[in-house]
Parts: sequence; structure tokens; C-alpha cells
Amino acid sequence: MVTHLQRDLTKLRQNILSMGGLVEAAVRDATEALVRREAELARRVINSDQNIDQMELQIDEECLKVLALHQPVAGDLRFITAIMKINNDLERIADLAKNIAQRALDLFALPALDEPLQFERMTETCRGMLRDALDALVERDSSAARLVVPRDDIVDEINRAHFELLERRMKRDPSAVEASLLCLSASRNLERIADLATNIAEDVVFMVDAIDIRHWPLSRPHQYDAI
Amino acid sequence: MVTHLQRDLTKLRQNILSMGGLVEAAVRDATEALVRREAELARRVINSDQNIDQMELQIDEECLKVLALHQPVAGDLRFITAIMKINNDLERIADLAKNIAQRALDLFALPALDEPLQFERMTETCRGMLRDALDALVERDSSAARLVVPRDDIVDEINRAHFELLERRMKRDPSAVEASLLCLSASRNLERIADLATNIAEDVVFMVDAIDIRHWPLSRPHQYDAI
Repeated sequence: MVTHLQRDLTKLRQNILSMGGLVEAAVRDATEALVRREAELARRVINSDQNIDQMELQIDEECLKVLALHQPVAGDLRFITAIMKINNDLERIADLAKNIAQRALDLFALPALDEPLQFERMTETCRGMLRDALDALVERDSSAARLVVPRDDIVDEINRAHFELLERRMKRDPSAVEASLLCLSASRNLERIADLATNIAEDVVFMVDAIDIRHWPLSRPHQYDAI
Repeated sequence: MVTHLQRDLTKLRQNILSMGGLVEAAVRDATEALVRREAELARRVINSDQNIDQMELQIDEECLKVLALHQPVAGDLRFITAIMKINNDLERIADLAKNIAQRALDLFALPALDEPLQFERMTETCRGMLRDALDALVERDSSAARLVVPRDDIVDEINRAHFELLERRMKRDPSAVEASLLCLSASRNLERIADLATNIAEDVVFMVDAIDIRHWPLSRPHQYDAI
């Protein structure tokens, strides 16, 4: 027999997946707008953020209701608190996608930089991490979630390469300062998206195995994440 | 009679305040290191981050235990989920303070920029927001928490001014690109700290009044927050 609790948990799972789908699309569209210089697409990403904000509030409320109504313990309790954290991280990812779309609009007013930037590869990696982390959530598969974590390094590495390339460009070509700063910002936003996808994967591991792998090893070097 | 639940909630409150104190000190010290060019202080901030990470894990675990043991509802349930969110935000603030300290160390290798940057005023505002949000948590004072939110604009405004000033400097003086980028990064990190302090205040309002003021008005303009 399916209990009320199980039914509510299934609904929560569906809702967080719907939100994940919207957020993943926002990340994809923001980068596509940036790379292909499509203003209309950038504006669509910016406008979609309100929906995602609303979903965040709704999912948070549902989580509180399930906690208060069913007072779950053990795995179910960890599932709900994981959903609350993942919900918040997804909303932050959508904010970052919106920032990228805003930087894209600013960039369109400037000549293209013509530098070998790897935004598409960066975004593909971020989207893959996000998708796999959410799949791992649904399948309660902590091994799959653990495989997401090291992929953060790929995104960090591309961001570092972008930083070095754009810093050099700004030093030798003052006319490129404005566009370079916007590209740096977009790159750093993608790097933060990968960090948040990593958080989601870590929350899934905790949910399934009851082992907290955050801050493990206690300090991952993120030399360029703040630039 | 003080119940077990009340005793556990008091302990949670004390622990989140201890963590808040450490995080506030990290923000203060990181900026002081940056402005006064004190490498030793910067390194201390970087090293203190591990303690804060450990406290985050511990507080999270305590929250789950209290939820599972006492199955609280209404205000107590909102208090615990608020603590979980605030705990996470405090850890993110500590990470940002660590980033500022790392940028400070990088800056010491370069000549001082000699621009009228307002890092101290920015940090004072951030620390005040953080302190008042945590006081509001302890006092369960949603009016005080609401007063924190608009102060985010002060920090945004300083960050915007920094951005414009440093962008102009980079355009006219390529030798200042490296140091300007590091200062921009420190400024943006402080701006994000103010955002997270705002989140904490919003969580306190929800805890006390059961009204969610996040995303209200639904989109606050943060034009420079991603740069």
C-alpha cells in the first residue's frame, strides 16, 4: 500500500525534477545566447527566472508541510532536508544563468572578442553534472552522485584558462577591457554553477549513505573561483 | 519546566551564534588584511575556514537529530529549518572571506593601486547586516530582520562604484590590470556576503512571521553582482 507520506515524497521528487529541468534549460539557453549573440534568447532566460523563484518557494513550503504532517525519520527525513538544500541550490543556479544572460546582452553592444573561449564545453560539463546529480537523486544512487564531484575540476580548469587568456588580452589591448570583463564574469558564473551542482551531488550522497562528504578533502583549492 | 526540545533548541541557537561570531571575525580580518596589507592575518583567515566547515557539519547533524528525536511542528520546525539554511549561508560567507584573504595575498606581490576604494565601509555594512540578522534570530525579532534587507543596496552601490572606477583604471593603465582584477574580485565577494546576510535576515522573517519575503519584489536588480 502506498502511504500518504510516500505519495507526498513522490510529488516532491517530481517537483524538484521539474525545477531541475527548467534550471538546466536556463543554463543551456544563457550560454547559447552568449555564444550565438541571441538577444531574444537572453531575455527569455532573464524572464524565466521568476517562475523558478516561485517554484523554489512552493517546494520549500511543501517540504515543511511534509515534515510537519508526517514527521518522517531516517532516510525519509534526509530525503526532505536534501530536497530543501537542492531546491535552494537550483534557485541559485538559475540566478547565475540569469546573470550570464545579462552579461550576454551587455556583450552584444561590443565587438566580438575573437578569443578561443570554451563556453560551450564548460556549459556541457555543468549541465551533465546537474543532470547526473538529479538522476542520482531520483535513483537514490550514491555511486553515480560521487562521480559528479570530480568533474568540477574540468570546469575550474577551463575557468582558470579563461582568466589567464583574458587577463593577457586586457593588458595588451585596453579597448578589449569591457568585453573581457563581461566574458570573465560569464565564465565565473559557470564555474559557480559547477560548484552548486557539486553541492547537489554531495547532498544526494548524504541522503543515500548518511555520510557527509562536504569539505572532503577539507579544503579543495579554488584559486580562481572568486575572480 | 524546560523540555528536552527547548534545551536542544537553546543549544542550537548558541552554536549558530558561535559560528556567526567566527564568520563575522573572518570577514573583518580578511578586509583588514587586504587594506593594511597584512599577510599573516590573511593566512589566519584562510586557516580558520576549516573550523567553520567543521561547525557547519556539526550544526547540520544536530538539526537532523532534533528533527528526528522531537518531531517539532510550527514555530519550532521553522526555527530548525531556518538554522539549517543560515548555517549553510554562514559557511558560504566564510568561504567568501577566505577568497578575499587569498586575493589579499596575491595583491601584496603587486604595487598598491592607490584608488579611493571603500573596502572598510563595505565591510562595516556587511558585518552590521550579519550581526543584526543573527541578533534578530536570537530575539525572534522580524522587524529588526526586515531592516537588514534594504542595507544590501549600500553594498551594491559601493561595488558598482568600484567596478566603474577599476574598469576605467584598467583601460588607461594596462600595468594595473592584475591588481584591479584582484580588487574587483574582493569587492564582488563582499557584495555576495551582503546578499547572504540578506538571505539570513529573510530566513529570520520567515521563521518568526511564517511569511516568505524572498524574491520580493520578485526581481531585485543586481546589475553588477556578477562582475
